[in-house]
Amino acid sequence: MTELSVKETAALLAQKDNILILCHMKPDGDTLGAGIALLRALRALGKQARAECADGFPPRYAFLWEGLDMECQPDFVPAFVVAVDVADTVLLGKPMEQWKQGIDLCIDHHPSNGKYAAYLLLEPSAAATAQIMRKVIAELTPLTPEIALCLYTGLATDTGCFRYSNTSAETLYAAAEMVGTGIDSATVNKQLFETKSAGRLELERRVLETLEYHLDGRVALMTVAKAVLEETGVPEADLDGLSGLPKQIEGVEIGITLKEAAAERYRVSVRTGMGADASGICARFGGGGHARAAGCFLRMPLEDAKRAMVEASAAALTPQTKV
Amino acid sequence: MTELSVKETAALLAQKDNILILCHMKPDGDTLGAGIALLRALRALGKQARAECADGFPPRYAFLWEGLDMECQPDFVPAFVVAVDVADTVLLGKPMEQWKQGIDLCIDHHPSNGKYAAYLLLEPSAAATAQIMRKVIAELTPLTPEIALCLYTGLATDTGCFRYSNTSAETLYAAAEMVGTGIDSATVNKQLFETKSAGRLELERRVLETLEYHLDGRVALMTVAKAVLEETGVPEADLDGLSGLPKQIEGVEIGITLKEAAAERYRVSVRTGMGADASGICARFGGGGHARAAGCFLRMPLEDAKRAMVEASAAALTPQTKV
Repeated sequence: MTELSVKETAALLAQKDNILILCHMKPDGDTLGAGIALLRALRALGKQARAECADGFPPRYAFLWEGLDMECQPDFVPAFVVAVDVADTVLLGKPMEQWKQGIDLCIDHHPSNGKYAAYLLLEPSAAATAQIMRKVIAELTPLTPEIALCLYTGLATDTGCFRYSNTSAETLYAAAEMVGTGIDSATVNKQLFETKSAGRLELERRVLETLEYHLDGRVALMTVAKAVLEETGVPEADLDGLSGLPKQIEGVEIGITLKEAAAERYRVSVRTGMGADASGICARFGGGGHARAAGCFLRMPLEDAKRAMVEASAAALTPQTKV
Repeated sequence: MTELSVKETAALLAQKDNILILCHMKPDGDTLGAGIALLRALRALGKQARAECADGFPPRYAFLWEGLDMECQPDFVPAFVVAVDVADTVLLGKPMEQWKQGIDLCIDHHPSNGKYAAYLLLEPSAAATAQIMRKVIAELTPLTPEIALCLYTGLATDTGCFRYSNTSAETLYAAAEMVGTGIDSATVNKQLFETKSAGRLELERRVLETLEYHLDGRVALMTVAKAVLEETGVPEADLDGLSGLPKQIEGVEIGITLKEAAAERYRVSVRTGMGADASGICARFGGGGHARAAGCFLRMPLEDAKRAMVEASAAALTPQTKV
């Protein structure tokens, strides 16, 4: 495994042809955005290239490949295989297993990258793989609005539209450059951040019915019953951010979500502000995590589980904020 | 009234002392961010300056004036009065009425600016007044993290964290420059965009109970009962974005919200995707607005109002999308 710089990566790609680009399974806007941007750049250079993903190319991202026919890409025996935003070959997914041993190049930003490729361009400080891909493409071909739209989507996806702490000055400069090409970033953002499935909305409504406040509103607790998950039919992949909900409430310092795994079995998620240590609360029950987000597993009736979490929260609130 | 350039505005401010900065009433992150940034810059130049707002300085924005005592600002007779992000003198609010006739300078981005000040720096294409203020301050004093935090807050507030269509390349370059000073933008964003009052959350839950789907899920309709508004105690100012909810649902082309104003009196808000004209739907009932967002007023029982809106929606869906 040889680690490459941006310039070396671009030089390597410039030499190659018949290039296969692999995105990770359960594709998101970064693996797709960075992958399709590379596809467009390579084709602009006159190269044969195609992109593949174990789960196909989801229609909700169709704006990324406008003008390209993803169902009918050129058929060739790949001479060079590039994995984009793929931290580990497991994430290529079953249908792509054949490529596992033969990844020539990986471009990625995950600190956990498995270093499985012959050549690796890894920038763990980059907010998105699109942020790295932008620099590679700049060495290869002029930035078009079509490429910019793809890279913008990657940047926006992995930063929650520039809200999260991984957003650096470089991320925002990159986004500015993309928007400067005249792309319609607002429509991309609407698609990425403002659309919810009817099931998810119904799930949220039913989960909010269980919301309880404790300790003068400093602790909020909600329960996700197995029946509600089943009745709303929301897939696991669509539960993102649900357990962050109680902590978003004004004045709440500890937000707790109990997700029913089976009868009297609860997967507990704890989110805290600066006044309390989430990992400390969860450690009392054999769990762990980070200071602001942690989890544990409780085997007891619901009312006991709630009481245990509220008692642990009361003990965790720092004396100066306890008044 | 004389319109000034950025450089002329900076030169004018550099000459003045004993400066009073006015923010608009019901202050948001832009009037406060741009206003406090200017306050910090003027004080850095050794000038006497203070900021005022008809509604005071809300504690949730306390991070903007960290290190300053807003309750106990220097007391002086203003020699120069600057209105920041104030489109019209009415927006100064009652307690600031005394200054109405004597605004020396206005720095603003609202296209509707009333041109009430002796000197005006107006950039209607700027996403936020903070975007203009950044250029003024750059002429006056070095950018500090404290000033950057204020300007970032203004930029993020008025663009929905860079999501809306007013976000230009210049907006993102400005944000990049601010983040480059090392400010903690993620914490600001959490405060601005992820915090909801307990009442608002309860209101959303109860309003979601009324959600109905029509025309194969292409139309979603919800009702905000007067009783629910009263029982949750959510003030008018905290209803932002509520009527956008039905349109956010996957597959929904027309989102309708009926807000009960009195018995059998409904204020109707209509949001549409590209497939239907919201203003056309509302025009049928004497209302109006824009293609994607419009409103009307119905005087009839709830069930009749719902039926009328669904019928108008069915007629408005374009033939090609009607299948």
